[in-house]
Amino acid sequence: MAFTDSNRHRHFSPEKMQKLNLFETDQMFCDIYCLRPGQAQHVHTHAGATKFYYVIEGEGRFTVGDRRVRLGAGAVAWSEPDEPHGVANDSDGDLVLLVAMAPNPNR
Amino acid sequence: MAFTDSNRHRHFSPEKMQKLNLFETDQMFCDIYCLRPGQAQHVHTHAGATKFYYVIEGEGRFTVGDRRVRLGAGAVAWSEPDEPHGVANDSDGDLVLLVAMAPNPNR
Repeated sequence: MAFTDSNRHRHFSPEKMQKLNLFETDQMFCDIYCLRPGQAQHVHTHAGATKFYYVIEGEGRFTVGDRRVRLGAGAVAWSEPDEPHGVANDSDGDLVLLVAMAPNPNR
Repeated sequence: MAFTDSNRHRHFSPEKMQKLNLFETDQMFCDIYCLRPGQAQHVHTHAGATKFYYVIEGEGRFTVGDRRVRLGAGAVAWSEPDEPHGVANDSDGDLVLLVAMAPNPNR
Protein backbone atom coordinates (compact mmCIF):
# COMPACT_ATOMS: atom_id res chain seq x y z
CA MET A 1 0.00 0.00 0.00
CA ALA A 2 1.18 3.49 -0.81
CA PHE A 3 -2.13 5.35 -1.15
CA THR A 4 -5.25 5.66 0.96
CA ASP A 5 -8.35 7.84 1.30
CA SER A 6 -8.66 9.32 4.79
CA ASN A 7 -12.37 9.96 4.17
CA ARG A 8 -12.97 6.20 4.12
CA HIS A 9 -11.32 5.78 7.52
CA ARG A 10 -13.58 8.25 9.33
CA HIS A 11 -15.42 6.58 12.17
CA PHE A 12 -17.10 8.09 15.21
CA SER A 13 -18.21 6.38 18.40
CA PRO A 14 -20.47 7.67 21.17
CA GLU A 15 -18.10 5.93 23.62
CA LYS A 16 -14.88 7.84 22.97
CA MET A 17 -12.63 9.52 20.45
CA GLN A 18 -11.67 7.19 17.58
CA LYS A 19 -8.12 6.74 16.23
CA LEU A 20 -7.95 5.21 12.74
CA ASN A 21 -4.56 4.32 11.34
CA LEU A 22 -3.79 5.43 7.77
CA PHE A 23 -0.27 3.99 7.54
CA GLU A 24 2.84 3.33 9.54
CA THR A 25 6.48 2.81 8.69
CA ASP A 26 9.60 2.49 10.82
CA GLN A 27 9.93 6.29 10.78
CA MET A 28 6.39 7.52 11.51
CA PHE A 29 2.72 6.71 11.84
CA CYS A 30 -0.26 8.65 10.52
CA ASP A 31 -3.79 8.44 11.91
CA ILE A 32 -7.18 10.09 11.61
CA TYR A 33 -8.78 11.12 14.93
CA CYS A 34 -12.56 11.54 15.02
CA LEU A 35 -14.06 13.36 18.02
CA ARG A 36 -17.71 13.94 18.74
CA PRO A 37 -18.56 17.06 20.78
CA GLY A 38 -17.33 16.59 24.35
CA GLN A 39 -14.70 13.96 23.47
CA ALA A 40 -10.99 14.53 24.09
CA GLN A 41 -7.48 13.19 24.00
CA HIS A 42 -6.21 14.12 27.42
CA VAL A 43 -2.93 15.94 27.83
CA HIS A 44 0.03 13.54 27.71
CA THR A 45 3.66 13.37 26.56
CA HIS A 46 5.88 11.22 24.32
CA ALA A 47 9.55 10.72 25.08
CA GLY A 48 11.77 11.43 22.10
CA ALA A 49 8.95 11.98 19.59
CA THR A 50 7.37 14.86 17.68
CA LYS A 51 3.63 14.74 17.05
CA PHE A 52 1.31 17.05 15.17
CA TYR A 53 -2.42 17.54 14.75
CA TYR A 54 -3.75 19.00 11.48
CA VAL A 55 -7.40 20.10 11.63
CA ILE A 56 -9.27 18.63 8.65
CA GLU A 57 -12.76 19.58 9.80
CA GLY A 58 -14.38 21.25 12.81
CA GLU A 59 -12.94 23.13 15.75
CA GLY A 60 -11.35 22.15 19.04
CA ARG A 61 -9.24 23.38 21.93
CA PHE A 62 -5.61 22.31 21.68
CA THR A 63 -3.01 22.24 24.42
CA VAL A 64 0.73 22.30 23.79
CA GLY A 65 2.97 22.98 26.76
CA ASP A 66 1.27 25.66 28.87
CA ARG A 67 -0.69 27.14 25.96
CA ARG A 68 -4.30 26.41 25.07
CA VAL A 69 -5.85 27.69 21.82
CA ARG A 70 -9.00 27.14 19.79
CA LEU A 71 -8.16 25.98 16.28
CA GLY A 72 -10.18 25.29 13.14
CA ALA A 73 -9.72 23.79 9.67
CA GLY A 74 -6.22 24.20 8.28
CA ALA A 75 -4.52 24.77 11.63
CA VAL A 76 -1.57 22.74 12.91
CA ALA A 77 -0.53 22.12 16.52
CA TRP A 78 2.73 20.28 17.21
CA SER A 79 4.61 19.07 20.27
CA GLU A 80 8.31 18.51 20.71
CA PRO A 81 9.61 15.48 22.65
CA ASP A 82 8.33 15.42 26.26
CA GLU A 83 6.08 18.42 25.62
CA PRO A 84 2.54 17.99 27.04
CA HIS A 85 -0.20 18.04 24.38
CA GLY A 86 -3.85 17.18 23.99
CA VAL A 87 -7.09 18.16 22.28
CA ALA A 88 -10.70 18.58 23.40
CA ASN A 89 -13.69 18.97 21.13
CA ASP A 90 -15.41 21.78 22.99
CA SER A 91 -17.46 22.71 19.91
CA ASP A 92 -20.99 21.77 18.84
CA GLY A 93 -19.80 19.81 15.78
CA ASP A 94 -17.58 16.88 14.89
CA LEU A 95 -13.82 17.31 14.85
CA VAL A 96 -11.59 15.39 12.41
CA LEU A 97 -7.79 15.51 12.68
CA LEU A 98 -4.84 14.19 10.71
CA VAL A 99 -2.21 13.12 13.24
CA ALA A 100 1.38 12.06 12.62
CA MET A 101 4.15 11.06 15.03
CA ALA A 102 7.85 10.41 14.47
CA PRO A 103 9.66 8.25 15.24
CA ASN A 104 7.06 5.47 15.31
CA PRO A 105 6.80 4.20 18.91
CA ASN A 106 5.28 0.92 17.66
CA ARG A 107 8.40 -0.17 15.76
CA MET B 1 5.75 28.33 18.42
CA ALA B 2 3.47 25.35 18.76
CA PHE B 3 0.55 26.41 16.58
CA THR B 4 0.19 27.72 13.05
CA ASP B 5 -2.46 28.24 10.37
CA SER B 6 -1.56 26.48 7.13
CA ASN B 7 -4.00 28.73 5.23
CA ARG B 8 -1.74 31.70 5.96
CA HIS B 9 1.27 29.94 4.45
CA ARG B 10 -0.34 29.30 1.07
CA HIS B 11 1.64 30.91 -1.71
CA PHE B 12 1.65 30.17 -5.44
CA SER B 13 4.19 31.20 -8.03
CA PRO B 14 3.93 31.11 -11.82
CA GLU B 15 7.61 30.02 -11.81
CA LYS B 16 7.38 26.71 -9.98
CA MET B 17 5.76 24.73 -7.18
CA GLN B 18 6.06 26.46 -3.79
CA LYS B 19 7.16 24.74 -0.56
CA LEU B 20 6.20 26.63 2.63
CA ASN B 21 7.50 25.31 5.93
CA LEU B 22 4.99 25.03 8.80
CA PHE B 23 7.39 23.68 11.43
CA GLU B 24 10.39 21.47 11.92
CA THR B 25 11.86 19.58 14.83
CA ASP B 26 14.71 17.10 15.13
CA GLN B 27 12.25 14.30 14.31
CA MET B 28 10.28 15.66 11.34
CA PHE B 29 9.40 18.59 9.16
CA CYS B 30 5.98 19.66 7.88
CA ASP B 31 5.37 21.81 4.80
CA ILE B 32 2.59 23.08 2.58
CA TYR B 33 3.13 22.54 -1.15
CA CYS B 34 1.22 24.79 -3.57
CA LEU B 35 1.09 23.74 -7.23
CA ARG B 36 -0.50 25.62 -10.09
CA PRO B 37 -1.80 23.52 -12.99
CA GLY B 38 1.16 22.00 -14.87
CA GLN B 39 3.60 22.27 -11.93
CA ALA B 40 5.22 19.19 -10.38
CA GLN B 41 7.63 17.75 -7.86
CA HIS B 42 9.58 15.32 -9.99
CA VAL B 43 10.03 11.73 -8.87
CA HIS B 44 12.91 11.38 -6.40
CA THR B 45 13.93 9.37 -3.33
CA HIS B 46 15.06 9.95 0.26
CA ALA B 47 17.48 7.60 1.97
CA GLY B 48 16.22 6.42 5.36
CA ALA B 49 13.13 8.65 5.47
CA THR B 50 9.36 8.28 5.20
CA LYS B 51 7.41 11.08 3.51
CA PHE B 52 3.73 11.59 2.94
CA TYR B 53 1.49 13.90 0.94
CA TYR B 54 -2.01 14.70 2.25
CA VAL B 55 -4.28 16.39 -0.31
CA ILE B 56 -5.86 19.48 1.26
CA GLU B 57 -7.38 20.88 -1.93
CA GLY B 58 -7.46 20.00 -5.63
CA GLU B 59 -6.36 16.94 -7.54
CA GLY B 60 -3.07 15.62 -8.85
CA ARG B 61 -1.27 12.57 -10.14
CA PHE B 62 0.92 10.91 -7.52
CA THR B 63 3.73 8.44 -8.08
CA VAL B 64 4.97 6.03 -5.40
CA GLY B 65 7.25 3.22 -6.54
CA ASP B 66 5.92 1.96 -9.88
CA ARG B 67 2.35 3.10 -9.23
CA ARG B 68 0.71 6.29 -10.46
CA VAL B 69 -2.75 7.34 -9.25
CA ARG B 70 -4.96 10.43 -9.41
CA LEU B 71 -5.87 11.61 -5.92
CA GLY B 72 -8.14 14.31 -4.53
CA ALA B 73 -8.96 15.98 -1.20
CA GLY B 74 -8.50 13.71 1.81
CA ALA B 75 -6.17 11.25 0.08
CA VAL B 76 -2.74 10.29 1.41
CA ALA B 77 0.27 9.00 -0.55
CA TRP B 78 3.36 7.86 1.34
CA SER B 79 6.80 6.58 0.44
CA GLU B 80 9.09 4.32 2.43
CA PRO B 81 12.85 4.98 2.54
CA ASP B 82 14.43 4.89 -0.94
CA GLU B 83 11.03 4.55 -2.61
CA PRO B 84 10.60 6.84 -5.63
CA HIS B 85 7.79 9.40 -5.23
CA GLY B 86 6.52 12.57 -6.83
CA VAL B 87 3.43 14.57 -7.71
CA ALA B 88 2.20 16.42 -10.79
CA ASN B 89 -0.72 18.81 -10.93
CA ASP B 90 -2.30 17.54 -14.14
CA SER B 91 -5.66 19.14 -13.25
CA ASP B 92 -7.20 22.46 -14.25
CA GLY B 93 -7.16 23.83 -10.67
CA ASP B 94 -4.70 24.59 -7.89
CA LEU B 95 -3.34 21.75 -5.77
CA VAL B 96 -2.49 22.23 -2.07
CA LEU B 97 -0.73 19.50 -0.08
CA LEU B 98 0.31 18.95 3.51
CA VAL B 99 3.69 17.20 3.44
CA ALA B 100 5.63 15.65 6.31
CA MET B 101 8.95 13.79 6.37
CA ALA B 102 10.72 11.87 9.15
CA PRO B 103 13.42 11.92 10.22
CA ASN B 104 14.19 15.55 9.41
CA PRO B 105 17.05 15.60 6.86
CA ASN B 106 17.87 19.22 7.82
CA ARG B 107 18.89 18.37 11.40
